[in-house]
Amino acid sequence: MTRSPELDALDAYFLSMPPSAALGLRADSFDGQSLRLHAPLAANVNDKACAFGGSIAGVMTLAGWGLIMLKLKRAGIAAEVYVADSQIRYLAPLYDDLRARAHLPDDGAWATTVNCYRHHGRARIALDASMHDGTDAVVATLHARYAILPMTKAAARA
Amino acid sequence: MTRSPELDALDAYFLSMPPSAALGLRADSFDGQSLRLHAPLAANVNDKACAFGGSIAGVMTLAGWGLIMLKLKRAGIAAEVYVADSQIRYLAPLYDDLRARAHLPDDGAWATTVNCYRHHGRARIALDASMHDGTDAVVATLHARYAILPMTKAAARA
Repeated sequence: MTRSPELDALDAYFLSMPPSAALGLRADSFDGQSLRLHAPLAANVNDKACAFGGSIAGVMTLAGWGLIMLKLKRAGIAAEVYVADSQIRYLAPLYDDLRARAHLPDDGAWATTVNCYRHHGRARIALDASMHDGTDAVVATLHARYAILPMTKAAARA
Repeated sequence: MTRSPELDALDAYFLSMPPSAALGLRADSFDGQSLRLHAPLAANVNDKACAFGGSIAGVMTLAGWGLIMLKLKRAGIAAEVYVADSQIRYLAPLYDDLRARAHLPDDGAWATTVNCYRHHGRARIALDASMHDGTDAVVATLHARYAILPMTKAAARA
């Protein structure tokens, strides 16, 4: 897969924010329905030589956030995305780099969300993300809802 | 309140782990039942000039983790603490330093947890944490369960 300008823009975004820069976060792939990110274990290791729970939560949360940002850009919508709530399950310690995937549900929820935003100027969407080890086993899951709101003037100028 | 060696030890712990060092995390106070932490906004700011959701989640998660570590130390138990699952609600954007509080329930759950660990060599405990802005308003909440497990040999040597 050739690397798309969309992924490069997302990487630049992650690098521009101190907390995601500290995670060492990079975008791996985006297929229109799912986004993959990764972050090195070294920057996210805890006292037990495995990945810190807060980093696992942060990378999964940003996978969902980044997926919505890319989808909005493709839809020609300039909006801000905030995580509203999340449930996280930590299933096994991760002694490997952090590999996260977020994906939109296949039930037409995205079309509904876009429609809602265009009519009401705000919308919400729920999605799932997961964290994988080097063998692709799932070591953590996230279910989160995100709010999509109009850009503030300050953000629109940037 | 004079600063206790317990808080200094917790700070040293946070500094020793790359992800919590990146958060700029410091322990503020511990009264035996609750722990307060703070982290500067500058290290945790997102593209909207407010605190990154992943940092808010991480600081609240570590407030709960640190509280359990301090309680275990006072109980004379050398164990490892892992977050097992969490529910997070983001109530308002935070344009301020991150101030988190974790507190144990008042229902005797801690005594039960210690008893369980001493009899079975493992235990779980649920607790709540919250994130506050400079006016003390709650901007996010966390409910999380943590697993308390025997130290691995590697950790016991450290």
